[in-house]
Amino acid sequence: MQTKSNPLKKFRIILCRTSHPGNIGSSARALKTMGFSRLYLVKPNNFPSSEANSLASGADDVLKEAIIVESLEDALIGVNYTVGFTARKRELTQPHENIRTTATKIFPMAEKNEVALLFGNEKNGLSNDEIKHCQILSFIDASKDYSSLNLSQAVQIVCHEIRMMTALCLNNDIIKITTPKYVSHNVLDGFFNHLESVLDQIGFLKKIQAERLMQRLRLMFNRINLDKDEVNILRGILSEIQKKIK
Amino acid sequence: MQTKSNPLKKFRIILCRTSHPGNIGSSARALKTMGFSRLYLVKPNNFPSSEANSLASGADDVLKEAIIVESLEDALIGVNYTVGFTARKRELTQPHENIRTTATKIFPMAEKNEVALLFGNEKNGLSNDEIKHCQILSFIDASKDYSSLNLSQAVQIVCHEIRMMTALCLNNDIIKITTPKYVSHNVLDGFFNHLESVLDQIGFLKKIQAERLMQRLRLMFNRINLDKDEVNILRGILSEIQKKIK
Repeated sequence: MQTKSNPLKKFRIILCRTSHPGNIGSSARALKTMGFSRLYLVKPNNFPSSEANSLASGADDVLKEAIIVESLEDALIGVNYTVGFTARKRELTQPHENIRTTATKIFPMAEKNEVALLFGNEKNGLSNDEIKHCQILSFIDASKDYSSLNLSQAVQIVCHEIRMMTALCLNNDIIKITTPKYVSHNVLDGFFNHLESVLDQIGFLKKIQAERLMQRLRLMFNRINLDKDEVNILRGILSEIQKKIK
Repeated sequence: MQTKSNPLKKFRIILCRTSHPGNIGSSARALKTMGFSRLYLVKPNNFPSSEANSLASGADDVLKEAIIVESLEDALIGVNYTVGFTARKRELTQPHENIRTTATKIFPMAEKNEVALLFGNEKNGLSNDEIKHCQILSFIDASKDYSSLNLSQAVQIVCHEIRMMTALCLNNDIIKITTPKYVSHNVLDGFFNHLESVLDQIGFLKKIQAERLMQRLRLMFNRINLDKDEVNILRGILSEIQKKIK
């Protein structure tokens, strides 16, 4: 796992709106110890910061190479599969599963796909707006009496679980199981935008329900793990509809 | 796992000679989120401390109830099985296995036994003198490029692994597999001291090799997981020898 083809390098860890720079530093250290290296920071509250550097310890290179972006959409460019980490159960939502289950399946995906691991703000976790980009939600089982894990501790467990599964998969040639290449996040987003505008044009979007409707549609299509041909077909249909109603 | 008979309460987490109080606080939070509660501190460098309290967050009760002792021996009174966490391979040593393997087997033990999870100082880890008390050594698989986990992150992973296995065992009734009750640490230590003095009396301990010899003997007997009757038999033999050579 230390070679150039280290499959853990296919993962990007995205921290959204992190409040405390110390948590960014601790997270960098956590992911590096587990063999990961690619850190994305969406609108960090206070970064760069000496506190982050101090807590990163020997993982200062991860901080130096971290990619800082203004929106989650920017962080997801080129991503094929996004896992959101959230403890909360939500009403209308993606499948919500234990990290061990997630680790079992995302590693083989990473052979051909760019996988994002998404962590929310320390206090409020992932927002609904962030959640909507995820194909799947995952949680770390915690005590009902006190379930508040520190952000970097959650990053540590998630990276550890994926690392453990990676070692297992590599030893068992599970990686050779062929997994399809999904479309990237921006292609998918382009499709959703196209879909939304068509629904609007045909008068299907009542303003008051539009957001909820789009959320349901996103959830539905996210479950399919679309490939490129399928997206082309769907967008072809949408374009055809647009021509007809002009 | 939230009932009074919570098996995770059978574990004690022992931090040896911790330098930074912040790590004690973060460790308290880590273990509480995973359903553990019993923290022992051997000669902490700086405790109590406001930094520890601050990082413990909602786990201040764990800190308040933490037991502070002057020696590891004191922390191990009443313990039946001790796992030491160390990344380093050592020359003459106990079995050294992955935390997942350890988690698989120590949970069923905890039904009848008091189990200690032993973590060393941040900089140097467990000393040879601390290691000698362990029945087994366990490690967290980490990147060869950078393997230095923060202490509280290591505590988090270990507690998470045991929690995951506990849930699995409880669901599968694995806990009903009968595991024997081993002797407690002080009984075992009494035996080793007895053995050492007999070896000395019979002139077997050449001063220069004495320590290494005792280490080997400890390793050997630790592998057996002695029960009370067996220790009584062994000590009976030792006493008999002492009578004869007087």
